[in-house]
Amino acid sequence: MSAGNIRLYSYWRSSAAYRVRIALNLKGLPFETMPVHLLQDGGQQHTPEFNDLNPQELVPVLMHGNRILRQSMSIIEYLDETWPTPPLMPATARERQRVRAIAQMIACDIHPLNNLRVLQFMDKTWNVPQAERDTWTRHWIKVGLDAVEDTLCDNPSTGDFCDGEQPTLADCCLVPQVFNAERFGVDMAPYRTIRRIVQNCLAMDEFKAARPENQPDAPAPGGN
Amino acid sequence: MSAGNIRLYSYWRSSAAYRVRIALNLKGLPFETMPVHLLQDGGQQHTPEFNDLNPQELVPVLMHGNRILRQSMSIIEYLDETWPTPPLMPATARERQRVRAIAQMIACDIHPLNNLRVLQFMDKTWNVPQAERDTWTRHWIKVGLDAVEDTLCDNPSTGDFCDGEQPTLADCCLVPQVFNAERFGVDMAPYRTIRRIVQNCLAMDEFKAARPENQPDAPAPGGN
Repeated sequence: MSAGNIRLYSYWRSSAAYRVRIALNLKGLPFETMPVHLLQDGGQQHTPEFNDLNPQELVPVLMHGNRILRQSMSIIEYLDETWPTPPLMPATARERQRVRAIAQMIACDIHPLNNLRVLQFMDKTWNVPQAERDTWTRHWIKVGLDAVEDTLCDNPSTGDFCDGEQPTLADCCLVPQVFNAERFGVDMAPYRTIRRIVQNCLAMDEFKAARPENQPDAPAPGGN
Repeated sequence: MSAGNIRLYSYWRSSAAYRVRIALNLKGLPFETMPVHLLQDGGQQHTPEFNDLNPQELVPVLMHGNRILRQSMSIIEYLDETWPTPPLMPATARERQRVRAIAQMIACDIHPLNNLRVLQFMDKTWNVPQAERDTWTRHWIKVGLDAVEDTLCDNPSTGDFCDGEQPTLADCCLVPQVFNAERFGVDMAPYRTIRRIVQNCLAMDEFKAARPENQPDAPAPGGN
């Protein structure tokens, strides 16, 4: 299928958008970045135009021609099914289960608790102070990464990457989550396997190009 | 592959376990329920024995022989790949993307915000009163179901079920979420399409048998 005409509605610091950027780069698919600033103008994701693209008012959204694709893990599986080489999923049902489970440990049980809309709700509705919100964020990242590390370490399926010797959906989710963890000052020292895998990922050009600071909508250093 | 020796670590009211029960029933796979009481004994999911099965200390866990499978959506895709008939995923990449996206709208962006460990954190760490916690829960269910209804209504892919005329992964996630919504008193009147689909699902024996009140660990009526 033609890779022509792929547009990614993205925000430089969104970890869900970051996942999809990695997958697009690993597939070697060119795409146009459509920046959606989640803070400016009261949040550009809340405009009627963006709501038409995604009633959840969340990034990312991927347009493939006229197809509107939502939800980052589901988008990545679509990319993998549509352009199978290089594969982002392992060859057996058992390994695919493991890869999806690692991705979901992050994308279901860490990230949604800490994303912008949740922290804004706590701030505006409950007046939870910034320091307490940061404690909340770090708590769920630690609980989640503890379990991810436990799943990865000393497991024969783990290789240079979460599953074997090639990046998969799981790595597409892990690297952005570690970016978030570092942003919020989580102590990464206990996560030996995670750190090793993320280092391997970030040595690859496909991951480097997807990094938040390398996006067209990233602010100049020191900006926000 | 033999269906022998399937055990589901489950809690009657866990909506993530409910998803997997539906899928097992739709596949016609017999399984043994291993009850994990999430409230008794300080939470049986926190025992060292259960932590060995799942370092996340969450249900469900599915044992297929010696294989330990975690994360409900990933378990359901494993069941579907291992026992393909009847399929729980549509035939095309585009439709699979849509089904996974609907499932993830629920399993990533509604349920994790409202599950037991989150509400316990708010209670014990922040002393958020019960009424405020219930408001939080209803808020995220409403935000999420608004978007799910928007995705389902007037979409040509929607049929008697979320996608076409057979239940899929999306219905496995939707029905338990609606159970949760009703439990917390969310007004379901605006969700015309969701209500129609859930009614179709709950007319099926496979869904009925998976309902919380029909589980071996469900309390007698009036209990908890």
